[in-house]
Amino acid sequence: MSQAAVFKHLGRRVRLGLIGGAPGSLIGPVHRTAARLDDCFELAAGVFSSNPERSLAAAKELGIARGYADIATMISEEANRPDGIDAVAIMTPNDSHFDYAAAALDAGLDIICDKPLTNDLDSALTLARKAHDKGRILSLTHNYSGYPMVREARAAIEAGEVGPLRLVNVRYVQGSLAKAVEAEPEKLAARTKWRLDASKGGKSHVLGDIGVHAQQLMTYVTGLRITSVLADVGASLPGRTAHDTAQIILKFEDGTRGQMLVSKVATGAQNVVAIEAYGEEGGVYWEQAGANDLRVMRANKADEIRTRGLPSLHPLAQRATRIPVGHPEAFFEAFANIYTDFAELVAARIAGAKPDPMALLTPDAWIGVDSLAFIDACLESTETGTWADVKRFD
Amino acid sequence: MSQAAVFKHLGRRVRLGLIGGAPGSLIGPVHRTAARLDDCFELAAGVFSSNPERSLAAAKELGIARGYADIATMISEEANRPDGIDAVAIMTPNDSHFDYAAAALDAGLDIICDKPLTNDLDSALTLARKAHDKGRILSLTHNYSGYPMVREARAAIEAGEVGPLRLVNVRYVQGSLAKAVEAEPEKLAARTKWRLDASKGGKSHVLGDIGVHAQQLMTYVTGLRITSVLADVGASLPGRTAHDTAQIILKFEDGTRGQMLVSKVATGAQNVVAIEAYGEEGGVYWEQAGANDLRVMRANKADEIRTRGLPSLHPLAQRATRIPVGHPEAFFEAFANIYTDFAELVAARIAGAKPDPMALLTPDAWIGVDSLAFIDACLESTETGTWADVKRFD
Amino acid sequence: MSQAAVFKHLGRRVRLGLIGGAPGSLIGPVHRTAARLDDCFELAAGVFSSNPERSLAAAKELGIARGYADIATMISEEANRPDGIDAVAIMTPNDSHFDYAAAALDAGLDIICDKPLTNDLDSALTLARKAHDKGRILSLTHNYSGYPMVREARAAIEAGEVGPLRLVNVRYVQGSLAKAVEAEPEKLAARTKWRLDASKGGKSHVLGDIGVHAQQLMTYVTGLRITSVLADVGASLPGRTAHDTAQIILKFEDGTRGQMLVSKVATGAQNVVAIEAYGEEGGVYWEQAGANDLRVMRANKADEIRTRGLPSLHPLAQRATRIPVGHPEAFFEAFANIYTDFAELVAARIAGAKPDPMALLTPDAWIGVDSLAFIDACLESTETGTWADVKRFD
Amino acid sequence: MSQAAVFKHLGRRVRLGLIGGAPGSLIGPVHRTAARLDDCFELAAGVFSSNPERSLAAAKELGIARGYADIATMISEEANRPDGIDAVAIMTPNDSHFDYAAAALDAGLDIICDKPLTNDLDSALTLARKAHDKGRILSLTHNYSGYPMVREARAAIEAGEVGPLRLVNVRYVQGSLAKAVEAEPEKLAARTKWRLDASKGGKSHVLGDIGVHAQQLMTYVTGLRITSVLADVGASLPGRTAHDTAQIILKFEDGTRGQMLVSKVATGAQNVVAIEAYGEEGGVYWEQAGANDLRVMRANKADEIRTRGLPSLHPLAQRATRIPVGHPEAFFEAFANIYTDFAELVAARIAGAKPDPMALLTPDAWIGVDSLAFIDACLESTETGTWADVKRFD
Repeated sequence: MSQAAVFKHLGRRVRLGLIGGAPGSLIGPVHRTAARLDDCFELAAGVFSSNPERSLAAAKELGIARGYADIATMISEEANRPDGIDAVAIMTPNDSHFDYAAAALDAGLDIICDKPLTNDLDSALTLARKAHDKGRILSLTHNYSGYPMVREARAAIEAGEVGPLRLVNVRYVQGSLAKAVEAEPEKLAARTKWRLDASKGGKSHVLGDIGVHAQQLMTYVTGLRITSVLADVGASLPGRTAHDTAQIILKFEDGTRGQMLVSKVATGAQNVVAIEAYGEEGGVYWEQAGANDLRVMRANKADEIRTRGLPSLHPLAQRATRIPVGHPEAFFEAFANIYTDFAELVAARIAGAKPDPMALLTPDAWIGVDSLAFIDACLESTETGTWADVKRFD
Repeated sequence: MSQAAVFKHLGRRVRLGLIGGAPGSLIGPVHRTAARLDDCFELAAGVFSSNPERSLAAAKELGIARGYADIATMISEEANRPDGIDAVAIMTPNDSHFDYAAAALDAGLDIICDKPLTNDLDSALTLARKAHDKGRILSLTHNYSGYPMVREARAAIEAGEVGPLRLVNVRYVQGSLAKAVEAEPEKLAARTKWRLDASKGGKSHVLGDIGVHAQQLMTYVTGLRITSVLADVGASLPGRTAHDTAQIILKFEDGTRGQMLVSKVATGAQNVVAIEAYGEEGGVYWEQAGANDLRVMRANKADEIRTRGLPSLHPLAQRATRIPVGHPEAFFEAFANIYTDFAELVAARIAGAKPDPMALLTPDAWIGVDSLAFIDACLESTETGTWADVKRFD
Repeated sequence: MSQAAVFKHLGRRVRLGLIGGAPGSLIGPVHRTAARLDDCFELAAGVFSSNPERSLAAAKELGIARGYADIATMISEEANRPDGIDAVAIMTPNDSHFDYAAAALDAGLDIICDKPLTNDLDSALTLARKAHDKGRILSLTHNYSGYPMVREARAAIEAGEVGPLRLVNVRYVQGSLAKAVEAEPEKLAARTKWRLDASKGGKSHVLGDIGVHAQQLMTYVTGLRITSVLADVGASLPGRTAHDTAQIILKFEDGTRGQMLVSKVATGAQNVVAIEAYGEEGGVYWEQAGANDLRVMRANKADEIRTRGLPSLHPLAQRATRIPVGHPEAFFEAFANIYTDFAELVAARIAGAKPDPMALLTPDAWIGVDSLAFIDACLESTETGTWADVKRFD
Repeated sequence: MSQAAVFKHLGRRVRLGLIGGAPGSLIGPVHRTAARLDDCFELAAGVFSSNPERSLAAAKELGIARGYADIATMISEEANRPDGIDAVAIMTPNDSHFDYAAAALDAGLDIICDKPLTNDLDSALTLARKAHDKGRILSLTHNYSGYPMVREARAAIEAGEVGPLRLVNVRYVQGSLAKAVEAEPEKLAARTKWRLDASKGGKSHVLGDIGVHAQQLMTYVTGLRITSVLADVGASLPGRTAHDTAQIILKFEDGTRGQMLVSKVATGAQNVVAIEAYGEEGGVYWEQAGANDLRVMRANKADEIRTRGLPSLHPLAQRATRIPVGHPEAFFEAFANIYTDFAELVAARIAGAKPDPMALLTPDAWIGVDSLAFIDACLESTETGTWADVKRFD
């Protein structure tokens, strides 16, 4: 996975317009670093604030050549340049994704967008269909599926190494809302404030913010859709209205059982993301804190610790790796893998070429639709206290 | 925690009669090793089979001085000896616990019994009440609560170190039923066969066999009862009737959220037992594979790794420890802690003395009642597909 | 490895006389617990103090049937009993081992003795030769070689799994002497005081106390003798005379390189014992903190984590294991493996039978001789500042 | 640590000329990725091969705007451009470092150079003095000291958290030379071939290639120089001439004891880099495989696991961190920290401003001189079989 693939199709880097991620934001530097890492992009233009002056100042501060006052201007002016942007990267609050993405698609641009795709199922579906109709790439930065050893897990399961699946468990816990931080809104970072505001962050904070990562991770690794859920989603902290915890029992399309725990009241837990999947012949275990390793288990046998960089890994994992075993990669490199997949897809599309089939596994708009349907089902189950089906659209 | 406490009360070891655990059984050697470890017991007598000859042969094979042909004989003959047994240890299949325990209580003997107490709530309740009425000790070998660092977790939470609890998660997974072992009953070990037979092993195999450990661990560490459950209990393997997996969302009496995953289809998972509990001020994490450590977490602070044997631990953990830090203890020592607690309670009872209050925390018949009520609620919830309350009796 | 082997040869337990290990000592309870664990011994008699009254009181306190006022009396009176002791266990300060062991051998008793065998090479050699001449067992409690996964490491190397050895590294560090504890002798525990006294503890504290464990571990795992050393042994703490740290570069008989770090000034290190050995085809890594696992490495392949209890382990490891994988064993069980090996050797000797060849691998007096020769070479190298040869005697 | 500091001084990125690192090299992509990561550099120009055509082709392949046929041309032509390079990054074989670095310094350019600085002490010293005389920055990519938690270790020791140091141990082992790869030179990767050739790679392969990392790590963390060594450096594999293993006992300037094991015959060890340092009050442990954590130990207390990203870390570690705790960083980010330190130093120099004092801790030419002196001492000690002093020059 590399710049070489992009240059082969395009003879140059993909030109990217940034939407959001001003200095001071958490996710802005992550997106930009990820985009730079494999040198597949030129960060050519950007809009960094709804305030035109602040947007231009931010562009200067970040060393982005062409800062714009607003998104419409960026889209139209870039369209008129011979070296105009090929794609946009959206990293603004969730409630704005729809408008920006729709505008970009209408202008023929490809899109890489932070998750969740939107805050509601209908608009997500509209975007997915529009991207399809326009023939444009719409990738989502579900960065956990960028980890090479998560990809190894998927490839191992797909290759039948663990046999027919029986049980999958995901745990994503952190402590960012352990205290009633919302009680002092004036002390809240802007990036926390909009997330807790349902009109911007979505109707279920914990599900929209980290639950969709857990759900995508689960479906990515297993290659299976979730069909029904038995859930309890809510606030663990007395007096809180925003959801901080989701507990979910679920079934996959082939009957495999699944379980999920997603919470922001796990005080001191350092963004623990862990997945285990068991089939009749074996199991896999991965967690972000030891991201370079995948534990592969078999009945009555020694565990195998597969490590990122080993030449014996599946191609899907090899492709997502930059340096030999023993030199660890981590969060930025995983995030960059999503960006580089996107670059390859964009370059192939422009060139009218077939992309590497492995790049096509990167999360797309339909995953975004699935995530919104999953959230809806979890909330319905919570309300009724019994099982709810997850809607399916494609 | 030691022989010294027993000798102080009794001037000698507690005399124990063994019920079950013939050579070749899995749990027999565990009970006997645990009983020997701190030298608080004389393994004086025993019945090892319903076949009288085999019982006597087993006693000889194990070097137990007084083998008996059956339990009634052991109880009556020992009662007539000046050095007769003080207590019995029951390690037979679940369905026999009630009769043996009732007979022992009627003879004025104390009891240490393998879990679950019985296979149904009514009989468990009858035993608990009988033990209470007779003034006898009835301990259950919930060995995970014998681990010093599990006790440290309990003590830390009780001392308020993590603040008011918000979220508790337990995971107990293994792969012993990953394959359809029941399809070839002639190859099954006797100890697996009776467990899978509902008439002997109880109506929900996975809950009776390991689920009650998970439930007891959760209530022991938090000091809280479980009041309601949203569960899915069943067989993951197509065609299986015995339950192999239980997925449970639950609420504690103070509103704290809990989650549990218990499964026997986790191929290759080596009897993974893990608990994490989070309060507003911090969290704890323990797993059996690293049994000598307890991770204590706090918001924005370095994690603390408390290790068994440190002089800074809570008394409840110190008391359950034999050697200094750096010399690990494990499964047998934890199991022995339950036995030694029991020895202290028995010795104090006989002496008419007050036992160490910490010994009273060891799991008793009422925990056994709770476990059966918990199983019933989980099965009810599975059937109705919605929340079920856990009955409470004391 | 079990009671069954002992009963087969002897029809009863081995009768053991204890020498040393009064209540309050650190190592006494360890020896007694280890001896009890597999129920191969009757702890029949004992001398616990050079003060006769204290010795008898200790026997009573510990529930040992036949306490004696002194060792000579124990040996002669037991010799006159039909149920007299078969063997003694010596756990007194190092400088007394020779006299007690010699007396026991003269009385025809087998011996299990704490390490080091003696404080000097000559007396160790005398004992080893006497044990040989008398045809008696003399085992040393080098408990680290009792760990099942250390035995797996030895067996794997012996079976050629890692190819010809090239590099072996052992690290045994703790912090017990990080501070100048000897500056306040009145506060020192008796067990520390005699160890720091060269006339009782030997001429190099760190080497005699833990260095010999590291050396035995290294030779046990590799099956190779150490032939020469380049060492720096001394006191890390300014003003200290006792040795607290030994740094050693070494060569084995086949040219394999070895390295050792042994120190008591590693503040906060919790008795870290770790060994790694690499051959041309692979490597092994073990450490006490994760005693149930052995990491087996191979070039460009996933690591293998072999876990105690797996049916796929070598017989030498299987034999040293009591319960299935997933139920961890630890320090006491490893120590007990040395005791149970000893029981089997004693029982076979008395029965005139051939012992299990695997029991013969347990550390014996010649290992004790090797250790003393190793200490001498390390001290010689430190003094000369250059390589010194290790003397060899058998 | 960021682009902001560079922009503040310079109003733009530092313009970098690349020397070496053609497509297919291992270290080229690492340097370029590291340079890109924090967006402090414009990778403006480069020479990638001694073959002019290949050099120009490589520039095109990598998307580097100004490829040159040779280094002299790059230096002179860039000097004539208004937007010419400020600095060069040297990543060619060791034996060429001197000429390229000297030419760059003569042209007034700053330098970031792969380690070792040169292959011999004299030329290293000449370069260090020239850099000093010319007032130019000469940084070395000792990337292990770029890890935030290595910096935390240094800061903790410097702040006195562990008290006066007593013992330091470094272990850097891998298996790249476990087999006689040099026996089939035609199969060797070019990057291995020149390293094993003493005329290009230096007189002691293992010391020049990874030993200097271990030595720099040790001195960086402790803040102490190594004054004398007792070493055995050589080939573990029979018939090999290149050194593959170095075993070193050492003393620091304050008398602290140190030990080092560096080897390339540790088959299957995945580039294990680990350091532990103990003082009278505590200790620290770090290893690359768990790079985001630093274990801080204290006598009789729970260990502290400090994790990258925690707000409670020392400023030196905070500064080297990009994202909050729980999102791991790894090898590239550590390498980038050396590059970004360099960017800040260059920008401040050009601006005539004072750089952040923490940036000055990044490894410089004098570290390179120290490393060569250390290699010389180790080889002298190996030859004489006794202690050798390490020369000191500044």
